[in-house]
Amino acid sequence: MDHLHNELKKEFQLERMILFSDAVFAIAITLLVIEIKVPEIHEEITDRAILEGLGHLIPKFVGFIISFLLIGLNWTIHHRMFGYVTAYNRRLLWLNLFFLFFIVLMPFSTGLYGEFAGSALIRNQLKVPMTFYVLNFCGAGMMNYWLWSYISNPKNNLTDPPIPILTLKQAKARALIVPIVFFLMLPAAYLVDVRLAVYVPLLMPIIMKIATNRIKKKYTMLSESPVPTD
Amino acid sequence: MDHLHNELKKEFQLERMILFSDAVFAIAITLLVIEIKVPEIHEEITDRAILEGLGHLIPKFVGFIISFLLIGLNWTIHHRMFGYVTAYNRRLLWLNLFFLFFIVLMPFSTGLYGEFAGSALIRNQLKVPMTFYVLNFCGAGMMNYWLWSYISNPKNNLTDPPIPILTLKQAKARALIVPIVFFLMLPAAYLVDVRLAVYVPLLMPIIMKIATNRIKKKYTMLSESPVPTD
Amino acid sequence: MDHLHNELKKEFQLERMILFSDAVFAIAITLLVIEIKVPEIHEEITDRAILEGLGHLIPKFVGFIISFLLIGLNWTIHHRMFGYVTAYNRRLLWLNLFFLFFIVLMPFSTGLYGEFAGSALIRNQLKVPMTFYVLNFCGAGMMNYWLWSYISNPKNNLTDPPIPILTLKQAKARALIVPIVFFLMLPAAYLVDVRLAVYVPLLMPIIMKIATNRIKKKYTMLSESPVPTD
Amino acid sequence: MDHLHNELKKEFQLERMILFSDAVFAIAITLLVIEIKVPEIHEEITDRAILEGLGHLIPKFVGFIISFLLIGLNWTIHHRMFGYVTAYNRRLLWLNLFFLFFIVLMPFSTGLYGEFAGSALIRNQLKVPMTFYVLNFCGAGMMNYWLWSYISNPKNNLTDPPIPILTLKQAKARALIVPIVFFLMLPAAYLVDVRLAVYVPLLMPIIMKIATNRIKKKYTMLSESPVPTD
Repeated sequence: MDHLHNELKKEFQLERMILFSDAVFAIAITLLVIEIKVPEIHEEITDRAILEGLGHLIPKFVGFIISFLLIGLNWTIHHRMFGYVTAYNRRLLWLNLFFLFFIVLMPFSTGLYGEFAGSALIRNQLKVPMTFYVLNFCGAGMMNYWLWSYISNPKNNLTDPPIPILTLKQAKARALIVPIVFFLMLPAAYLVDVRLAVYVPLLMPIIMKIATNRIKKKYTMLSESPVPTD
Repeated sequence: MDHLHNELKKEFQLERMILFSDAVFAIAITLLVIEIKVPEIHEEITDRAILEGLGHLIPKFVGFIISFLLIGLNWTIHHRMFGYVTAYNRRLLWLNLFFLFFIVLMPFSTGLYGEFAGSALIRNQLKVPMTFYVLNFCGAGMMNYWLWSYISNPKNNLTDPPIPILTLKQAKARALIVPIVFFLMLPAAYLVDVRLAVYVPLLMPIIMKIATNRIKKKYTMLSESPVPTD
Repeated sequence: MDHLHNELKKEFQLERMILFSDAVFAIAITLLVIEIKVPEIHEEITDRAILEGLGHLIPKFVGFIISFLLIGLNWTIHHRMFGYVTAYNRRLLWLNLFFLFFIVLMPFSTGLYGEFAGSALIRNQLKVPMTFYVLNFCGAGMMNYWLWSYISNPKNNLTDPPIPILTLKQAKARALIVPIVFFLMLPAAYLVDVRLAVYVPLLMPIIMKIATNRIKKKYTMLSESPVPTD
Repeated sequence: MDHLHNELKKEFQLERMILFSDAVFAIAITLLVIEIKVPEIHEEITDRAILEGLGHLIPKFVGFIISFLLIGLNWTIHHRMFGYVTAYNRRLLWLNLFFLFFIVLMPFSTGLYGEFAGSALIRNQLKVPMTFYVLNFCGAGMMNYWLWSYISNPKNNLTDPPIPILTLKQAKARALIVPIVFFLMLPAAYLVDVRLAVYVPLLMPIIMKIATNRIKKKYTMLSESPVPTD
């Protein structure tokens, strides 16, 4: 009974870290909408004026939707990752906090991008807001990769049973590919054209497909032979 | 013991999705109040002046109360729905996120409506803020319906035991009727009068009553005969 | 096993309602600080100027501290109340939501009070901000009383074992006395003087003491004799 | 079964207090970013202008990062502390709320510091924003120490098994040293120079090392001998 109690306490301590992260995710994803201010209308208030006011907000809505999807994506990855974790240590708490740092920063980056995107972005070939946004998102991606590496490292004893090798390799590849492809927006913007850069993320599914297939080929042979991990 | 542990982990993963949703609901419902700014008084500060300032906020308070009730309603539905769910998959996580997207948008729609409602709405027959608000709420309603369909689909193996057929049919009917009735505000506003449109939701209880009674009649006969689901 | 599973699910559904409430409490209590804006300094920036700017914020800080304590108080009461609750129904979900409505409104009321309190309150004998604040807090108090009544009503089957009679009587008395004493601030302000009204809550401990002692006397005799509830 | 049920309920009541605290931590840490407003540009919008706008935000970013780390640190300490707690009482709820009070205040203090730090801080030797920030953080630290003392006091029966003596002594020492070192920034600023004060926290690791080593020496001898606590 006492042993069970200790087990439960340890489990709750881990769950607490996870639910704290979820609260941060939830707040960051909801704060995104705060950056979209109700349009102020200085002329006569008509439907046309409001519609025009909303029209000016389109870049902010686009930013909001993209960031909602990207934070959502990060949450689903975090959700999957910690589905394997069965223990924690001080270092994991801090790595997770550093990961959350970049999530917390997302509403600001989204606001910056939304403020100066749209027609201004195209006309003036603005690169700074895009750079800030991309670096923020890549930061989250790199921390994501670091977390997968740390958690799966058998030395740290954080997963029991260990993560299946195929799952792990694919997860780590995906965690790397997402920030790398987003990062490619920067050379595309600086060396070629900002308008080209925004299409770079469309390469994601293709690159993802190639990478995961390669890994599948390489590691399913391995996992078909009896492995000690499963 | 190990099997039990896995069970508990799977259950926690599902609970995590639910508690994350609750955090989003809680933040969205609390942020509603942020859109109501303390009135600024430029003349001498007297009780009369403050009261007048608060008077101008009445449409915002109305919007706040309506949205509080509607988000609350969506939360109770979500609460009921996930009372049946016993498993999750990647697709459910994303469907749930899309549902939450419309919840997150509610504070903005409420702010937009509250800003331009009241005397301006009546005088100028404003339709844009109402349209935006109605579409936002209908989006949440449609996702709600989609979630019920997805969760109850036996192919997806997400509920064990399955949802009783009568409960499911009524839940799906309700999930459809709410956004449809709200949507009817738009033809009422565009074809007849904005002032009529705001009374359309009052039809809800009547339509709801008729629909659920019909379903009850049809399916209680079925459920009186022995069914494999219960 | 299946029965246990159902038990756990039902329990989680109840816990979900409670944790959702906690998230609302947590956000409302944290949003209080948002109403205190960093002072803007238009002259030369010196320590004296900043200190003066902070000085003007004192009424806001006072409002923040009072509201923090009052929301905290409501949370501890909610925490205690739901320590007895072992089941839920649709009506309880909504009663709880109505209670949370007044919690969500607190940051606005606090902002309103803080904005017009201080020297202006004294000089101009402002009653409107105080009235709004008191009514908001009394609304929470009344919902609190309603929740105790609903939860403890044996017809609703929400507590098993039932709440001990002495505990219940004291809790209900406390739940009533808090809003009543705060409400007395209004006649004190309107009939006598605003400056008197702010001291009315200091009567709380005395009235509380008298009431709980009376109840103790009356019901400890009862609970010494064997009662069916415990 | 009934006894187990009561046990679980009591445990949930404790968990509720902890998860409520986590929500407050999560909101406070996420609200930090709200104080960093997207730069407004009044001239022509160019990359150079945005970069300059971001440049002016550097003190705010520094404040954001420091506060993120300090709230994160407080969270990890809270996480560790409550890993030992197995019961609660009314007083613990309130002590914890007072601790959270200083966490909730952090976004304001960070905003104040970030607003007037940077070049203005150096040029004008501003001491007020630093004082406010330091006092806020020291408040959290003192409450932290008080919580450790209260929780570990055997009279209160809050930990079972009791916290190992070495762990407790180190935790309490750490809880004291953090606010004391931060507090030393104030005499350094007022008696010497503001520019010196910001380097005072760098002494932390050294002082921490000395103190924990001393405690280790003193108490490992004790804990090597059989003690009743473990």
